Amino acid sequence: MRKITETIGKIKPIDARILKEAQRRLDNLTKPERSLGRLEELAKKVVAITGRENPTLDRKVIFTMVGDHGVARQGVSAFPQGVTVQMVHNFLQGGAAINVLARGVGAKVLVVDMGVAHKIKSSKNLINKKVASGTQDMMKGSAMSRKQALESIRGGIEIFEEEWAMSGVDIAGTGDMGIANTTSSSAIVACITGCKVQDVTGRGTGIDDERLRRKMEVIEKALKINQPDPHDPIDILSKVGGFEIGGLVGCILAAAAHRVPIVIDGFISTASALIACELCPFLKDYLIAAHRSQEKGHQIALNHLGKTPLLDLNMRLGEGTGAALGMKLVELGVKVLNEMATFEEARVSREGN
Amino acid sequence: MRKITETIGKIKPIDARILKEAQRRLDNLTKPERSLGRLEELAKKVVAITGRENPTLDRKVIFTMVGDHGVARQGVSAFPQGVTVQMVHNFLQGGAAINVLARGVGAKVLVVDMGVAHKIKSSKNLINKKVASGTQDMMKGSAMSRKQALESIRGGIEIFEEEWAMSGVDIAGTGDMGIANTTSSSAIVACITGCKVQDVTGRGTGIDDERLRRKMEVIEKALKINQPDPHDPIDILSKVGGFEIGGLVGCILAAAAHRVPIVIDGFISTASALIACELCPFLKDYLIAAHRSQEKGHQIALNHLGKTPLLDLNMRLGEGTGAALGMKLVELGVKVLNEMATFEEARVSREGN
Repeated sequence: MRKITETIGKIKPIDARILKEAQRRLDNLTKPERSLGRLEELAKKVVAITGRENPTLDRKVIFTMVGDHGVARQGVSAFPQGVTVQMVHNFLQGGAAINVLARGVGAKVLVVDMGVAHKIKSSKNLINKKVASGTQDMMKGSAMSRKQALESIRGGIEIFEEEWAMSGVDIAGTGDMGIANTTSSSAIVACITGCKVQDVTGRGTGIDDERLRRKMEVIEKALKINQPDPHDPIDILSKVGGFEIGGLVGCILAAAAHRVPIVIDGFISTASALIACELCPFLKDYLIAAHRSQEKGHQIALNHLGKTPLLDLNMRLGEGTGAALGMKLVELGVKVLNEMATFEEARVSREGN
Repeated sequence: MRKITETIGKIKPIDARILKEAQRRLDNLTKPERSLGRLEELAKKVVAITGRENPTLDRKVIFTMVGDHGVARQGVSAFPQGVTVQMVHNFLQGGAAINVLARGVGAKVLVVDMGVAHKIKSSKNLINKKVASGTQDMMKGSAMSRKQALESIRGGIEIFEEEWAMSGVDIAGTGDMGIANTTSSSAIVACITGCKVQDVTGRGTGIDDERLRRKMEVIEKALKINQPDPHDPIDILSKVGGFEIGGLVGCILAAAAHRVPIVIDGFISTASALIACELCPFLKDYLIAAHRSQEKGHQIALNHLGKTPLLDLNMRLGEGTGAALGMKLVELGVKVLNEMATFEEARVSREGN
């Protein structure tokens, strides 16, 4: 727990004066005031988070954390559990959507085994932080022990800090893979927001009506049996969470502690962000919501964080695919601040003719 | 007129079977079906437009067309007319928003003088297609002659075709600059959609309430005096249009004739697209709406085209800035189709456990 409290202790609220000063500089650039809308907001935010006048976002890193879920055996997903490990191999071979999109925006993908049920062929591109071979079935008891929950968060912190020390991270994106992890995330979101299970449970990879009903029953039962304490985020993570979710919580905390902006992907990532913000409310300032996922509970989770997503492209894949697109927009916003000419430099007249 | 009718004659409707076949291929890739939402739609669309199974979008070109408007002297903008030529110099020096964003997404910007009021220092980066030194004041009569309207469209076709022949164009983006060109565009949109002037007139570069009232009066008067024929797009262009708008019409027609996808920027570009689609209804299939501008009439113009924009970032700058962002998304969609592994290749199990 010490590593976690230490990390949380380093996260400071961002300075509103810096936002104002950055807007003043944006208003000097050759465009009508605020005419680049949210790109300007992103630029300001990155200045305030990093504390740098002219930040650059060359080192874009997506942390794709993977874990299996015991609850998968309740038939809550359209895919069998074995797909988790198969997709890890796909990530390592560069053939998955996240690989393609990350290459397309110039980001690096770190694939982390936080708790895959199957053994994965060792690879120089895989980071091994396996807490256990999948969680327990949350419908029958706690998904993991409190110790394991803390271990998964610490694992996430370590992964971020290793990358930070070795190669540097200018902006972090979150990503996930794990069959049945929308089931776990819906339970987390219901617990933290206080919303009904039916309002935060969606079709995940694309299940039919019957399976969706089953999924909601499973979540209801898991919450009833485990009674997670809404005011104790570690309790929620251990009872209905997942190892990849814990890993993302740690990664988010560590990024904020190092003043690195964090681009949140879809539903699973946002559930992780909810837990992280319960641990440290200042954290919200460091988060950028990449997109609105098609997954039903995502909007509710985003509302709870007070975030308006950058994109709304009917995506629902996870892996960090939305974060990859969002990162590119953040980078472009920062480029506007760094590279545009001022009215004076370009000898362009200002408003008022 | 011959060049224009020839170009229109080359535009063919896209083949719905190709869209279906491309979706079948997308459904074989390692992701839940359609889980990449609009990225998949973009990929399919580009396949159907280009007729290529695996199109690449390396050569991204933004056509930023510039023209002055006689109506500027009615005080409809927050900026003086001289800003048009000042911004052209800014474009040529690479300090404007469009330069920054185009660099950021790997696109080339072509700056075209379609009819700037002032003389521009000649530069190897400037394309000169000046029809005249700005339009006439549409509040006092026709903005340009019918001959000039046709000349501006032909100019736009030539620019596209020269670039196509010299360097190649895989995807085209539209952009504009011209003080008072939202006034002209609102008149065009009112005329083609049949909507009230007040519903399609916004604050442009950021005018106050008083100037907005003046702007609406000016547009009303211009429409009353000129009586553009809603069924004759060339009549509309000549009476209340602009040279840069005519240039964009030509560029859009030529791109479609060469089976090149066209990413439409904001309000002025969409007004140009409305004219182009009146000339050739098949054209709609070739257009991708980049973003929803903050400019009031933009949503109405997009509805008329039946387009849902990709982005909604509160932008209202023009120049092609929205198109630059949109192009990047289209490119990423196509990369998904070209680069992702199939279930078979990656040995990943399909739905149904």
